[in-house]
Amino acid sequence: MDIKRLNSGVCIDNFRAAGVREGKYGVAVIVNDKICETAGVFTKNNIKAAPALLSMKNIKNGFQAIVVNSGNANTCTVKGMENARMMCEIAGRELEIDSRNVGVASTGIIGRELDMLRIEKLIKRAVQNLSKKGSKNAAEAIMTTDTRIKEISLEYNGIKIGGICKGSGMIAPDLATMLCFLTTNADFGRDILQRELKNAVDNSFNMLIIDNDMSTNDTVILMSDRNKKCSLEDFRYILNYVCTEFARMMATDGEGVTKFLEIEIRNAKTERDAREGARAIASSLLVKTAIHGENPNWGRIIAALGSKIKFDFEKTDLIFESEKKRAFAVKNGRVMRLDSVREILKNNKIKIIVDIKAGEYKGKVFGCDLSQEYIRINSEYN
Amino acid sequence: MDIKRLNSGVCIDNFRAAGVREGKYGVAVIVNDKICETAGVFTKNNIKAAPALLSMKNIKNGFQAIVVNSGNANTCTVKGMENARMMCEIAGRELEIDSRNVGVASTGIIGRELDMLRIEKLIKRAVQNLSKKGSKNAAEAIMTTDTRIKEISLEYNGIKIGGICKGSGMIAPDLATMLCFLTTNADFGRDILQRELKNAVDNSFNMLIIDNDMSTNDTVILMSDRNKKCSLEDFRYILNYVCTEFARMMATDGEGVTKFLEIEIRNAKTERDAREGARAIASSLLVKTAIHGENPNWGRIIAALGSKIKFDFEKTDLIFESEKKRAFAVKNGRVMRLDSVREILKNNKIKIIVDIKAGEYKGKVFGCDLSQEYIRINSEYN
Repeated sequence: MDIKRLNSGVCIDNFRAAGVREGKYGVAVIVNDKICETAGVFTKNNIKAAPALLSMKNIKNGFQAIVVNSGNANTCTVKGMENARMMCEIAGRELEIDSRNVGVASTGIIGRELDMLRIEKLIKRAVQNLSKKGSKNAAEAIMTTDTRIKEISLEYNGIKIGGICKGSGMIAPDLATMLCFLTTNADFGRDILQRELKNAVDNSFNMLIIDNDMSTNDTVILMSDRNKKCSLEDFRYILNYVCTEFARMMATDGEGVTKFLEIEIRNAKTERDAREGARAIASSLLVKTAIHGENPNWGRIIAALGSKIKFDFEKTDLIFESEKKRAFAVKNGRVMRLDSVREILKNNKIKIIVDIKAGEYKGKVFGCDLSQEYIRINSEYN
Repeated sequence: MDIKRLNSGVCIDNFRAAGVREGKYGVAVIVNDKICETAGVFTKNNIKAAPALLSMKNIKNGFQAIVVNSGNANTCTVKGMENARMMCEIAGRELEIDSRNVGVASTGIIGRELDMLRIEKLIKRAVQNLSKKGSKNAAEAIMTTDTRIKEISLEYNGIKIGGICKGSGMIAPDLATMLCFLTTNADFGRDILQRELKNAVDNSFNMLIIDNDMSTNDTVILMSDRNKKCSLEDFRYILNYVCTEFARMMATDGEGVTKFLEIEIRNAKTERDAREGARAIASSLLVKTAIHGENPNWGRIIAALGSKIKFDFEKTDLIFESEKKRAFAVKNGRVMRLDSVREILKNNKIKIIVDIKAGEYKGKVFGCDLSQEYIRINSEYN
């Protein structure tokens, strides 16, 4: 069975959504007719935003709605928790549901108190606008430095998953947040949803390397209205598919990004080696700038890998791939002619494979180049 | 007693040096009349250059001379070890000493075989030029992307330490290497020299964050001709002083660097927290670009710190210092007016102090900003 693209965004089944915006400040609301089975993955940063802390606490009740604001992260503020709670209360009151069943998330500048009068006004307007067609507006309302709306909805063997997401390759400062809200009809309990979401996030968002900075607000929430009995394998497949597509969208978004990278370590001795090795390459400024300059500087890749894991260069293959071409830069530790690699580097989607022939584990990360534009944007941002 | 500046560079006491260059390729030689007590700290990269491996092996014999080439790293090559050994043999033959008492180091492009004919010619020329005044030429011969010669010699309570060093804030690609060669008269055995050198490197070079990339060739060697009985405390003090000064020189060198940073975590619960916390801030691209843009974006500093260690923001002070000014951005978790911080950020030497009031450990790192020039240089480099 093939994957079918739907047009509903986050509004699959009985989910409705709305988004409103006033200058830099936006509010999105997503709601269902009933309390959903809910899973969530939150930032591992030791400094956590108040809304993230509150959602972490309330998620066990299951969410019927989510309220999100952009423009202010509600982090490192004095009234943070009070205001996060108030956002849930306002949304609960307007939606006529229990505020303990409302998830909350924020993204924007750190260290400024929320303007609750503005927030209240925007939440009210959003609730009035709720509809089956509101997903796009909701996706737009949570954008900060994103240059593109990020929205998906798919159907696979009767399983529907919808989602909206924000976060960009440029990932700006106090707006560094990644937010993702997913809806599904797949009939699984909280524990299974949580486990599957955690795994999908580990393989997608957690393998996305933009600039190594971890936000205080990162939040991924998955709500299920349990309308569809389905196989776990199918659900796992489609959930991973959606998360990976969102991760790709984030990596390629942002004015500072000119090249999208997929970096894969093959045949590592341990899973940790495979993942850490791929991350080391994707994080290296020297690798990122070389790729930006279309410079076949394979030595930087080997040095970055060697800084994190043990491997035998004598056995190593280093392969570059574009959609149409594939070339070895290094084969069994011998350097090849680099003309084809140079050609491949002219593409804007590049895959780098390092086969270290030490075991059977594979690790893959998504990344991007590092451009002068990135520096300009992040130096000037206020 | 004060520290006295000498003019001898690496040529204190009976040390002599020379450096010669032919275009991109340089060779430096440092030699003493006798075999020295020798300590060394080498790259932790799992891929180690052949010369680093050979020096690691031979250092137990003590070195009487060191031979260094720039322009080619002799890493990831087929004849790497053979050629590194040959460099020691040529130097040994020309100097009429045992090649097992010759240390060797290389810096430059990865993955190309050394041109041994050129190397032999340069080593011969260098040996012919050896003199008490050769330190500056030696320092010049080991430069790659460095824009300035790095050379120190000091005397403190009769202890002399001389040194030359290469490595730059810009730290380029396959030339990412940090090399440092130190000479002293301090009369200590190998074990003490090794322990003291290791500690001094941990507090200086290892706390220097340029771009997080670790070279395959990094080498620090300390040779002592044991001419001066002295106190361990004095030696420790002056050795740390020299290494820290070299680290500062490296951080401020390089066309891409406009601001030198000192980042200090105060009152951390553990030493690890203090050091890892400081490293996290210095490594953050968002922090580095904010500083470059003179942008008082304290949220990025807090988020970077929170990504690595636990601390209580409510208790935290965040202080910015220039040579003449000092200002709080955050005091006990409250955000201050940022006008003075903005002023401080206009300087090219900036200290950032985060006092987390959780214990009594302190950690300090040296770093620099991240500029568009860095990207340009590292994208274009070939």
